[in-house]
Amino acid sequence: MAIRKLYGTLGSPDTIRALASIFEHELDFEFIPIDLDTGEHKTESFLSLSPFGVVPVLQDDGLTLFESRAIMRFITHNYHKPGTELVFEVPKQQGIVATWIDVEDHQFNPPAEQLRQELVDKTKKGLTMNKEVVAEAEAKLVKVLDVYEERLTHSKYLGGDRFTSADLSHLPNLYYLMGTPVKRLFEERPNVSAWCRHILSRPAWIKVVEMVEKNKAV
Amino acid sequence: MAIRKLYGTLGSPDTIRALASIFEHELDFEFIPIDLDTGEHKTESFLSLSPFGVVPVLQDDGLTLFESRAIMRFITHNYHKPGTELVFEVPKQQGIVATWIDVEDHQFNPPAEQLRQELVDKTKKGLTMNKEVVAEAEAKLVKVLDVYEERLTHSKYLGGDRFTSADLSHLPNLYYLMGTPVKRLFEERPNVSAWCRHILSRPAWIKVVEMVEKNKAV
Ligand SMILES: N[C@@H](CCC(=O)N[C@@H](CS)C(=O)NCC(=O)O)C(=O)O
Ligand SMILES: N[C@@H](CCC(=O)N[C@@H](CS)C(=O)NCC(=O)O)C(=O)O
Repeated sequence: MAIRKLYGTLGSPDTIRALASIFEHELDFEFIPIDLDTGEHKTESFLSLSPFGVVPVLQDDGLTLFESRAIMRFITHNYHKPGTELVFEVPKQQGIVATWIDVEDHQFNPPAEQLRQELVDKTKKGLTMNKEVVAEAEAKLVKVLDVYEERLTHSKYLGGDRFTSADLSHLPNLYYLMGTPVKRLFEERPNVSAWCRHILSRPAWIKVVEMVEKNKAV
Repeated sequence: MAIRKLYGTLGSPDTIRALASIFEHELDFEFIPIDLDTGEHKTESFLSLSPFGVVPVLQDDGLTLFESRAIMRFITHNYHKPGTELVFEVPKQQGIVATWIDVEDHQFNPPAEQLRQELVDKTKKGLTMNKEVVAEAEAKLVKVLDVYEERLTHSKYLGGDRFTSADLSHLPNLYYLMGTPVKRLFEERPNVSAWCRHILSRPAWIKVVEMVEKNKAV
């Protein structure tokens, strides 16, 4: 079997979403850093793997996949972890997981990504944030978190009684936002707050964070 | 078993994505129209089904799902059509389908949806389109279709040699755009053009179109 490879950048939320899934499944892999600053993702050789020139890309035994959530879905279906699967075998239960993966993608990610850009990326680059954008994104995030708070009264995790990709998919943006004033929006909601604490302290996620922080220190 | 219900509106691309999947699987169902104009989707009773107040919603044997692509994924996994499945059993093949479902969602849908709003919705309402928005969305769509043209030299369908949800997911926006000048962008590309013709002429899709057009005539 060819060596499994993940191409990406450790500063990219989508890359660390795929990484989280790899670590949850305890898969061996080689990380191939792609330098977005020098435009490495727009070179012909990278475009032959990822035709839209975006990271991450997974290469696994002859298969090449892009789109972080598709990579995450593939891994959970291909690599079962008996007793602690991140996927339900029963289509009805997995249908609920699919709904909440798409909720992350369509409801949570847009404001979370905006807040990350304004509050994390801009600060790092010494730029000033756009207060209006922040206020608008916060208002959207509040509505999303209110739905989550209610949802998490019915089940411990978003997709049911088990940690699944529906939760995992949130980790990248949660990680970034927990280092910003937006943290309070999560802490004010008891169920959301407990859920964040739980999923952010998973051993696989801690390994991702270690890898990201080590990379920052270099 | 309770009656299967799809809540939605026939003018909504996301609703007709779910409808297409239902017709492909020849499932019995009742269509419950939700009137977005009167705000029926923001009533307490609808919010109890779809907490973000969006259509479509599928109710099936005690299960309530929202997010059109999640509904589509659930149907393909739960209702096999022996010999003509819209899903691959092999995780590696299905991983490719998952990638192209997300490509539709993240690359194709944003410009296609903008063009639909500018060229179809606004015309219907007697409003003038924003030429700049149209030009920008067209430029984005061109890049996407160039990737599709190349992809479709390798396989007949986006997800492999079989019609899958990766193709089906495109039908709503394709249907709308084929009635606009943007049609030429599809026709100029031989593989994309053949693919559009194929998938738009599927019997299940024709049933969806009949239902949509009949509704318009009312
Ligand atoms: N929906 C894709 C988005 C991938 C994406 O946009 N990745 C960013 C980094 S987080 C990227 O490659 N940006 C470079 C570019 O768009 O040129 C996914 O989830 O993988
Ligand atoms: N990502 C969701 C989007 C659903 C959606 O936004 N539906 C529109 C109609 S196409 C809607 O319900 N709009 C009403 C609103 O947002 O208030 C899906 O695919 O189901």
